[in-house]
Amino acid sequence: MKKNAKVKIDDAELDERVQRSKAAVLAATYKLLTETGLGGVSVDEVVKRSGVAKTTIYRHWPSRSALLLDACANLRTQPPAPDTGSLKQDLEMLVTMVAERLKTAKWSTVLPSIIDAAERDLELAEIQARLHEQMRFPFREVIERSQERGELQRRADPSHIIAALLGPLFYRRWFSREPLDKPFVKDVVGRVIDSAKSAA
Amino acid sequence: MKKNAKVKIDDAELDERVQRSKAAVLAATYKLLTETGLGGVSVDEVVKRSGVAKTTIYRHWPSRSALLLDACANLRTQPPAPDTGSLKQDLEMLVTMVAERLKTAKWSTVLPSIIDAAERDLELAEIQARLHEQMRFPFREVIERSQERGELQRRADPSHIIAALLGPLFYRRWFSREPLDKPFVKDVVGRVIDSAKSAA
Repeated sequence: MKKNAKVKIDDAELDERVQRSKAAVLAATYKLLTETGLGGVSVDEVVKRSGVAKTTIYRHWPSRSALLLDACANLRTQPPAPDTGSLKQDLEMLVTMVAERLKTAKWSTVLPSIIDAAERDLELAEIQARLHEQMRFPFREVIERSQERGELQRRADPSHIIAALLGPLFYRRWFSREPLDKPFVKDVVGRVIDSAKSAA
Repeated sequence: MKKNAKVKIDDAELDERVQRSKAAVLAATYKLLTETGLGGVSVDEVVKRSGVAKTTIYRHWPSRSALLLDACANLRTQPPAPDTGSLKQDLEMLVTMVAERLKTAKWSTVLPSIIDAAERDLELAEIQARLHEQMRFPFREVIERSQERGELQRRADPSHIIAALLGPLFYRRWFSREPLDKPFVKDVVGRVIDSAKSAA
């Protein structure tokens, strides 16, 4: 009995050590990601930064992509879905929140490197699709609730509306690099609301 | 006199040789760009592919960025500006053209790598801004002509309208990877026209 108890404590200690080294690897990967984009993340560099051995890393993550996928989970691109009872207010809150994050969050600097890699790498395309699905989810919720309330026509395609909201934000952040300011946010939401009205 | 004439021919020959090797370097750089994105383009790799010596390359282009800038000029992102006399028709033509190019043109695979590099490299941010300005130019022209005709209000901000047109296209091509089909193009233009009307 006494011996078993001792073994259990060792297991717990071992487990804690494993968790600590996994956390160190993920933290180092995430930090590298935000500093250099995806291109700068190699397992060798993660070894150097985390102090965790390469064999240990490969024991937990079978490939660089698997490690990247886990580290990207830290990027937290999903904003919460507001529920004010008005489509316009919900969208203004949501779009303002995304605009704010695009300006300040670390993933906003990292995402282009994931998009780029996804052009040529199927596993990374999968990671990118998941991140995008997360970001899009609250928009779907807000739009579907508005359709249930009868405020927005059921035949309006939510994916078109989401493109009309996220598209201009992404465009300003990564392509034209113009300010994501209040008048712009108001205009983006206003265009969607106007067009929903003129379709009604 | 005779001697001078001989020298002139030699100059012409030399010049032709220079032009040929410059063209070979640009072609190799462009091919690499489209195959690997910006990340795969190193001067060493260009030497290997073009057969032109590194010293020769650096004689014509002082840096990798300068070479990239020249090679990117080949990406030809600028669509011609239609002039049908109707904003809706002009925009439908223009947006259809950009959607087609996003689906088929090589630069559409390369652009994310330029966007990514621009996040961390000022010289490449400059290249990206120029490419973007090219692409945006015909939109400005079409919108300004419509404002001159009084079809579109002068206080409408062209940069907001361009974001409402290019944003959703870019979003589908690089972020959601949904189809850039006819109904989508129609919807994108329709939203801009609807909102211009309800603002009038």
